[in-house]
Amino acid sequence: MKIKIIGTATTKFGELWDKSLEDLLREAVDGALRNANLEPKQIEAVFVANKAAGSYENQHHLNALVSQFFPHHPPAIRVEAACASGGLGIVTAEHALLADQYKTVLVVGVEKMSDLSASETTFILAGAADNTREYGSTFPALYALLAQSYEAKFGSQREYLSAVAVKNHRHALTNPQAQFHKEITAQQVAQSQLIADPLRLLDCSPISDGASAVILTTKQVSHKPQILGYGHAQDSLDLAGRSSLTTLAATTQAVEQALKKAKIKRSQLQVAEVHDCFTIAEILAIEDLGFFPKGQGGQATLDGETTIGGKIVINPSGGLKACGHPVGATGVKQIAFLAEQIQKGTYQYALAHNVGGSGATAVVHILGAS
Amino acid sequence: MKIKIIGTATTKFGELWDKSLEDLLREAVDGALRNANLEPKQIEAVFVANKAAGSYENQHHLNALVSQFFPHHPPAIRVEAACASGGLGIVTAEHALLADQYKTVLVVGVEKMSDLSASETTFILAGAADNTREYGSTFPALYALLAQSYEAKFGSQREYLSAVAVKNHRHALTNPQAQFHKEITAQQVAQSQLIADPLRLLDCSPISDGASAVILTTKQVSHKPQILGYGHAQDSLDLAGRSSLTTLAATTQAVEQALKKAKIKRSQLQVAEVHDCFTIAEILAIEDLGFFPKGQGGQATLDGETTIGGKIVINPSGGLKACGHPVGATGVKQIAFLAEQIQKGTYQYALAHNVGGSGATAVVHILGAS
Repeated sequence: MKIKIIGTATTKFGELWDKSLEDLLREAVDGALRNANLEPKQIEAVFVANKAAGSYENQHHLNALVSQFFPHHPPAIRVEAACASGGLGIVTAEHALLADQYKTVLVVGVEKMSDLSASETTFILAGAADNTREYGSTFPALYALLAQSYEAKFGSQREYLSAVAVKNHRHALTNPQAQFHKEITAQQVAQSQLIADPLRLLDCSPISDGASAVILTTKQVSHKPQILGYGHAQDSLDLAGRSSLTTLAATTQAVEQALKKAKIKRSQLQVAEVHDCFTIAEILAIEDLGFFPKGQGGQATLDGETTIGGKIVINPSGGLKACGHPVGATGVKQIAFLAEQIQKGTYQYALAHNVGGSGATAVVHILGAS
Repeated sequence: MKIKIIGTATTKFGELWDKSLEDLLREAVDGALRNANLEPKQIEAVFVANKAAGSYENQHHLNALVSQFFPHHPPAIRVEAACASGGLGIVTAEHALLADQYKTVLVVGVEKMSDLSASETTFILAGAADNTREYGSTFPALYALLAQSYEAKFGSQREYLSAVAVKNHRHALTNPQAQFHKEITAQQVAQSQLIADPLRLLDCSPISDGASAVILTTKQVSHKPQILGYGHAQDSLDLAGRSSLTTLAATTQAVEQALKKAKIKRSQLQVAEVHDCFTIAEILAIEDLGFFPKGQGGQATLDGETTIGGKIVINPSGGLKACGHPVGATGVKQIAFLAEQIQKGTYQYALAHNVGGSGATAVVHILGAS
């Protein structure tokens, strides 16, 4: 059974103070329906990916909220897996399709984060960690621990971390939905405010509002991007339980599952959207996904191997770093963006990599032209 | 493909101040594994149902939290649909099984509610309503509106509402996991504190802590209860968008779907666990499920038609009213309890009915002996 992506839409990502959670959801849903040229009634079920609307604005029950946009109130399910909510929302929709419960479904991911202060949002984001064994940790602090472990093994990463940020800001210039359209220099990254050593302000993805939707079908359609396979793996939620702090084992497992299901070789992949919530996360990702040997992801980035013309284009959307990171939307946006690129003919095979917490949940999708 | 229930466990429900969210999850997971006589490694995937651990204690990412109980960190997905989280968690697991992604999975539902004050919990529970169009409404107030609409059409329900509470408290006496083991009289219900007219304190389900787990498999096993079918329907999240306030349309749709999938007649059902978050909800449920004509559910209850020896036994566990209502656990507990009854030979066919919000999400399962 083949799953095709027949509609996509992503709102502008950013600090969208004039838009509510519901505005963002409606814009993405309506956009995907228009893009797929479908009537609302043709959607048989809805999957909603969101991390924390309950914490942000006490709106639980998002499945029902989105279902009521449709005149026929289709069955709807909300999935949450911290920052991997989007990727796992798509997996959950795939399960329903592969189980032949529905033929055509819509997945929408959303987060509305900018209405609270940065410290309140940092607290809510920390809910993706283990609140017993990592109590009080913030995500910059947890990723700083990963960066420190990595530097202890492979030496200072400053110029490499900066290269990730510079590249992703440059990529975002061509993505109209991106939060930032501003080139930055390595010097600006290296001199930006220290957040959690060695991570600086410009190493961090921003706080963002946004939504993204995709429509998936198992009906026969031509010339539409296809989901070739997915992988979904977990690791210990708290860092202390991990076998390594320089590899995200969930990523390595998820990509192997996805490649096996997709029946393609890693070398056929031309592009990947990876989970660069912090610059160190992109270096870990491109190594753990097997694109570069461990310890060499930073140099490869500096050498231009992860931009247009390099070995593999990483985060052409700008990634979480520059496109923005409305948490529940990110995993859906990765798929929507890559499907649009495949549809345009820019790439034939693409990978999306979505991570929850500091690597406790990893979801990898492989897409291909059909 | 047949889905069998091979393990169940439910913690004691109640105000469990000495147990954490994680304690409850571990107790249910370990209990279900023991009950199924399985090793942890035999669980291929985990589904976690929870409404609001993010709001209660800023613990999002429960899928990863539960996955790390298992040495092999199986893939895990958290599903939220307000008070229907449990039922929808089981539906989501069924999709994965029917898609043949896994053969044996565990579903665990949990809520830890008693650590906050009643007013804080009432606020969090209100997040299951539409926070734009029903801003400021509490759930007792919303169900009181339903009760008032019902009374406007069918006359005072006081003695009927009281009869529901009395019956469910009596049923709970034989359920060791139930929060309340205390018989109450109709007079006590009618004279309890007025909460939201006509609903009084003893018309309301309590604030509860608890967890429940079931293990489902598509492997061939004998003499284990089977899930014969499910239904999942939505209605407008806000009451103003409903076509009727005396019928929950999502329930009527979900039960028809479930009966069709299960290929049994309604008259074959001997027992049902229904979503009696308030006494009026049980009267609505037994009518909307088609067990009694509209307007006659209360009289049927008063006449003993919904207890042992009557037409159909409703809420032998004590229901949400007396067994307790740890929100994310409830839908799983209904299935676990009914599976245990079928396993004991008490019943052959059973129905579980789980509702989210004031009827925006409804999930119905039909179980049978195999």
